This record gives sequence, C-alpha cells and structure tokens, in this order.
Amino acid sequence: MSFDRLWADLAPVGRSADSGGYHRYTWAGADTDARAWFTEAAAARGLEVRTDRNGNLWAWWGTPGPGAVATGSHLDSVPDGGAFDGPLGVASALAAVDELRSRGFTPARPLVLGVFVEEEGGRFGVPCLGSRLTTGEIDPARARGLTDAAGATWERAMEQAGLDPDRIGPDPELLGWLDVFVELHVEQGRALEDTDHPVGVASAIWPHGRWRMDFTGRADHAGTTRVQDRNDPMLPFAHTILAARALAEKHDARATVAKSLITPNGTNAIPSLVSAWLDARAADEATLASVVEGVCEAAERAARDHGVTHTMAAESTTPLVEFSHDLRDRLAAIVGTRAAESAGPVPVLPTGAGHDAGVLSAHVPTAMLYVRNPTGVSHSPQEWARPEDSHAGVLALADVLQDLLAVPGGTY
Amino acid sequence: MSFDRLWADLAPVGRSADSGGYHRYTWAGADTDARAWFTEAAAARGLEVRTDRNGNLWAWWGTPGPGAVATGSHLDSVPDGGAFDGPLGVASALAAVDELRSRGFTPARPLVLGVFVEEEGGRFGVPCLGSRLTTGEIDPARARGLTDAAGATWERAMEQAGLDPDRIGPDPELLGWLDVFVELHVEQGRALEDTDHPVGVASAIWPHGRWRMDFTGRADHAGTTRVQDRNDPMLPFAHTILAARALAEKHDARATVAKSLITPNGTNAIPSLVSAWLDARAADEATLASVVEGVCEAAERAARDHGVTHTMAAESTTPLVEFSHDLRDRLAAIVGTRAAESAGPVPVLPTGAGHDAGVLSAHVPTAMLYVRNPTGVSHSPQEWARPEDSHAGVLALADVLQDLLAVPGGTY
Repeated sequence: MSFDRLWADLAPVGRSADSGGYHRYTWAGADTDARAWFTEAAAARGLEVRTDRNGNLWAWWGTPGPGAVATGSHLDSVPDGGAFDGPLGVASALAAVDELRSRGFTPARPLVLGVFVEEEGGRFGVPCLGSRLTTGEIDPARARGLTDAAGATWERAMEQAGLDPDRIGPDPELLGWLDVFVELHVEQGRALEDTDHPVGVASAIWPHGRWRMDFTGRADHAGTTRVQDRNDPMLPFAHTILAARALAEKHDARATVAKSLITPNGTNAIPSLVSAWLDARAADEATLASVVEGVCEAAERAARDHGVTHTMAAESTTPLVEFSHDLRDRLAAIVGTRAAESAGPVPVLPTGAGHDAGVLSAHVPTAMLYVRNPTGVSHSPQEWARPEDSHAGVLALADVLQDLLAVPGGTY
Repeated sequence: MSFDRLWADLAPVGRSADSGGYHRYTWAGADTDARAWFTEAAAARGLEVRTDRNGNLWAWWGTPGPGAVATGSHLDSVPDGGAFDGPLGVASALAAVDELRSRGFTPARPLVLGVFVEEEGGRFGVPCLGSRLTTGEIDPARARGLTDAAGATWERAMEQAGLDPDRIGPDPELLGWLDVFVELHVEQGRALEDTDHPVGVASAIWPHGRWRMDFTGRADHAGTTRVQDRNDPMLPFAHTILAARALAEKHDARATVAKSLITPNGTNAIPSLVSAWLDARAADEATLASVVEGVCEAAERAARDHGVTHTMAAESTTPLVEFSHDLRDRLAAIVGTRAAESAGPVPVLPTGAGHDAGVLSAHVPTAMLYVRNPTGVSHSPQEWARPEDSHAGVLALADVLQDLLAVPGGTY
C-alpha cells in the first residue's frame, strides 16, 4: 500500500535520535520539511496545492470550489511528541486518494486534503490556531502577537516563512467550499484495543481549556530564611498539582498541572513567582466547571495559607463538540462493512483531545475516524498504531470518501 | 564617608530596571563591569591589583607576601538578587582602607582585599567556586567542565574573559600569605534587627548542601489519559516540595525545593521527567542528615505510589564551619567598643548561608562581621541595609583591621 512509502518518507522528519520523539514546531525547520513532504507528495499525485491566507495547506483533487469533500489533519507536534498524532491523518488522506484511483473511482465533486498549522499550540501556545483563524474563532491581531519561547511573534515567524501576516483571518469563501470534513486520527486512549475493531468513529470532543495561574510570593534566601517567615509560592503550587489530580479522580475528568515557569529558578532562591498552567477536560460543561472551580479554590486557599497571591485566567476554552449524529452513524455503517461479524458494532467514542475537526464542526458538518493505538499513549514517543491498523484506517477513509464523493455536493 | 560614593558608583551595575534586582553572572557583562569598578577603585587608592590563577582579584596595601591580613567578599549575584550580598563586603573593605588612612594609621604588615569569583554559583551551579579552587576543595578538571544554562563551560567562559583555564587549581603560595581573613556581609535574617546592634559577629555556618532529584515518569497526553493510568512525575514532585517544608519545620532547619526543570513542559503533555533540587541546611550534621533522609524517603514513597522512578544525588555538600572562637571573641570585643552600653553584648550568630569565609576557614583563621538587614530578606531586591548601618559596618571593619594590622604577622 502506498501508505507505507509515504510514512517511511515522513518518519525521519523532526525525529529525535535520543528519544525517538518528534519536534515539529510551526514555521521552524522540521515543520517546514514536513510541509514540503506533503506538497511534493500531493504534486506527485497531480493535486493542486494552495496555501491559504493563514498558512494552512490544501491539495485539491478536482477544481477548487464549492461542494468539496475535505479530509486531512496536521503535521506539527508537541515537544517530543509521537509520530502519529496528526501525520497519520495526512498520510492516510494521500494514501486514500491512491486507493480510490486504484479502484478506478471517479469523484462526482472535488476532494481537498487539508494540513492545518499549529494544531498543537506547541510553539505559540494556542492549539488549533490555523483552523481557529480560518473559522474566525480567534482575533487575527491576537494571533499576530502570540510569541514563542524565544519571544518571536507569529507575525514575524510567518513573514520568515515567506507568508504575509497582514492577510490572516477568517476565510468564509474557503469555508463555504467545504461541504463536509472527515479527520482520521490515531486514538488517544485504549478503548479500541479492547475490541476487534482497528477503526472507530468519534462521538464528541469533551469541553476543555487551559488556565494560567500565577503564584506571587517573595524572593528570599533559601538558606537563611526561617520556613515560617517565607512567602514561598512553591507550596501553593504543590498543593494545586495535588488538588487537580484529586478533583479529576473525583469527577472522572482530566486535570493536569504540568507546564510551569519558576522565577528565578535558582537552587538557593525562594521563588518570587511560579506560573503554572492547568489543562482540564470533562465529559460535560458542568463537570468541567466544577473541576476548574475546585482547583481555583484549592489554589486560593493554599496561597492564602502561605501569604502568596494567586490569580487564575483562562487562556483558551473550547466548548463541548458533538459531531453530527447523522454523519457519524453513516461513517460507522461504512466502517462496519469491513469489520468481522463477531466484532459487534463499530465503537463510537468521545475524546478528551481537541482537534481541528472540533473547531471546524461549528461551521461544516464534521466527523472523525480513530485508528487503534495499542499503547493508548499519545503526545509521547510511545504513541503507536500497528501497520495493519493504519492500512485498515486508509481503507476506511477511502470507503467514506468514496461514499461522499459519489454524489454531487449539497447534502454533505 | 567614601563608602557612599563607592556604593553609588557600583549600584547601577547589573541592576534590572524592572525589578530592581541584580543580574551579575561570573565572566558576563555586568560582572565584568563590577570587577572593573573594583580594579579602578583599588588602583585609585594606590593598591596593587592582581588576578590570581582562578580569576579571584586581590588588591594589596603593602607588599604582596606572607603575614597578610585579608578581607573582602564577592561581586556576583544570584538571579535577580539583592544589592548587598557580596558587594557590601567589597565596598566596605575599600572604605575601611580610606578610614584607616584618614586616621593616619600605618599598618605593620600587608592588607589585601579579595574579590572571589562565582560565590553564588549563579552561573555555573557550584557556589564558592573561586575559593574552592584556591583552597583545592574542587578538582580543577571538574570546574573546567561546569556548564551554564546555555551550555558554555567554565573553561570557555574564562578564556573569553582573557584568562588561562589551564592554570586553575590550588594556590598554596597565596593561601600561605594569608594570616587571617575577615569577611563583612549583610545579615541574611532579622536577628540584629531585634537588637540595638548594627553589627554582629558570626559563630558558625550551618552544614548545608544541594541534592538533585530526578522523577522519571511516562510522557502522555494530558487530555486523553485517565488519571489512574498515568505515571505523572509532577505528583511525587509536589509531595516532595511539601515534605521538605514539613521536615524543615519539624527539625527547625531549612529545606527548599525551588529550582526545577520539567520535560517537555507543555500544557497538554504529562511530563516524562521532572528534575528538582533540594537545598537543605541545619544547625548540625545529624539534623541535616535527618532532613535529607526524610525528604528522600517521602520522594521515594510518592514516586512508588505513582509508578514513577526517583533518584537522588548530592551535587555539593559543605560540613559545619565553626569560626575560630578566639578570633570571633576578639572581634566581638572590638565591635562592642562602639555599641551603646544599654545594647548589651555584641550578638554572635550562626547562619544558614554559605560563604567564601566558610571555605577559607579550613585553611586560614577566619571570621565574619554581619551588618543589620531590617527586611531580613536576602537574594532578593528587598535585601537591605540602612546607610547608617553600612557606615557602622565600615567603622567596625576598620577597627578590626587596625587591630590586626598593628602587629607583624604570626599570631593571626
């Protein structure tokens, strides 16, 4: 299957020799190489590749215009991320084109393969930035001013990539051309592994968000200041890490404090400031609100106990996404035709992970296919999909696209 | 008093306009400027300035050679440190020379003013590096290979400063010339503030050290991994921060976890690794051992609870320093002659902070004077000494040096 060749070509791009993890950050070296890989692979298939005003790539089979069926994903990674999150959907889309052509299939309307920029927020901090810009869900001025860890702005980085940052923003014409969007993605969990299904269908994306907390204490000498005289922000920070975990457990949700910046971060210096980010997700908005409020209260209380001030502000929030029931049922039926009879119905699963599909779903009928991940691990070098499951994913995507492309635009 | 002019000249060097804190890192810009300030101020007083093989500066009043009385401190800072920690001792030494000359005093033996490099370990991680090298307490090969946050070695940084890193190491000739060393330092605590004494005398430096802990978990997606399926190193890290605090409280010691590095430090990425440093100090070795063992046990236990591995290793340890009782009593008597009668005896205080005086004390009879700090805060922009207390410090130091310089070398 052409997938294997595509995958082998992309695999070395941005992979760390030490960890086996990936470092593909928007507009930087490995990301640029991965985008070039896509452009070449699409061109080799006679697809017309366009870069939209926000830097997303679109490869057209057929004439660009209304009534299009869209598929695709992203190529950027989290720091030291896995090989599959994003790229599996892009490589599978290209391989699905090959599969449809090998079947002698002729589409009744255009197919377009999308590659979204900065899906992970790995460089500029806001996830799904490419799809948010295109759908108008983020202010272009805010996006231009986003900075990476070295202080470079999105505006400057885009210029250096040869693109015009003045043109970024909503793209209603392009969005209007898309009748339906299907994203194939590696599963980020082990639900499929316990079934005989290599491919599942998404039901919903949990509401989720990122909150920044600042714990401001008083810098002091760690060797000379009696512990009872300190205003040490590390202590409420520690209590907050533990509170987030306990609340996630209580509410069957996810709450994580990982990214943190300690100032000045010296061995013998009680910090003046600890900034920490809460990542929280839950099955519904009310549960998510309970978790976030609980973390905030615990942080406030611990901060007060230690004479430290605490502030908390949302950096990004994404409401519950329920994918079109009609579309997901149609996908499940198509995927089910290749499943073993004994396997039972195709699993229809919610996820805690955000996706460009989630952002687009407010504007375009959208669905997702998941490919089984035996480790269940994601955002890590251990993220994995067996080759035979990836092949099953390509066939499932090809079947779905064939079904959608067989009729002219309108319904989907 | 000439102290004020000296202080005004030095004050802007490396001071942050934002925080008012100091950023003077060995061999880098502001540190170089501060060293130039010292060299010029010493030269203006007719003192001969020499740079020793390890980069420490020595300004001689009288012929360099045996029997010398030494004083001084350091000019480097912790990140965003205070104005006084180090520089107060250097500026006071220069002002004490002026004071002795204004008294018409003629020394019976040489006086030398020392400025030690990398006392804070703020750039290369090992505190008192200059005095450790001179006394042979650190292997020169290890010192050459120490790296700063940007990966630059001590060797390369020293070369760039125009010095020869091949020559670093023990300096028995120079050490042999020093009969006695007195370091004046801002108090790092509020003990003097509760008395009528602007100046106190050191009794001891608590045993202390730095330990590195690595918590190794499993990278994973923070949005999709159920909390019970995680091996999240943030959790034992948080437990360890709190355990260190509780143990310090229990043992009336100091234990701080501040400096920490989280990998990969992404908002939605459960870390694969958290490295955290323990700074611990106590009045005696047994108590220190109890604290460090307690932290290690708590870290082990919490790591085990979360399926995380934990390692802990000492990066530097410094045994108890008890300053010469005879010398400290002599200093207390001299300082007491200027104290108000109602003030009672001059305070003789231990400290949790390491100093070059502590390193030298194993080789040269050594004492320390403390100048009152009304905030008690140190390693912070809020570190403070009132001008009148700084003046009292200069007079006390001049009195002590006059006493020691009045007789030829030998006793001290």
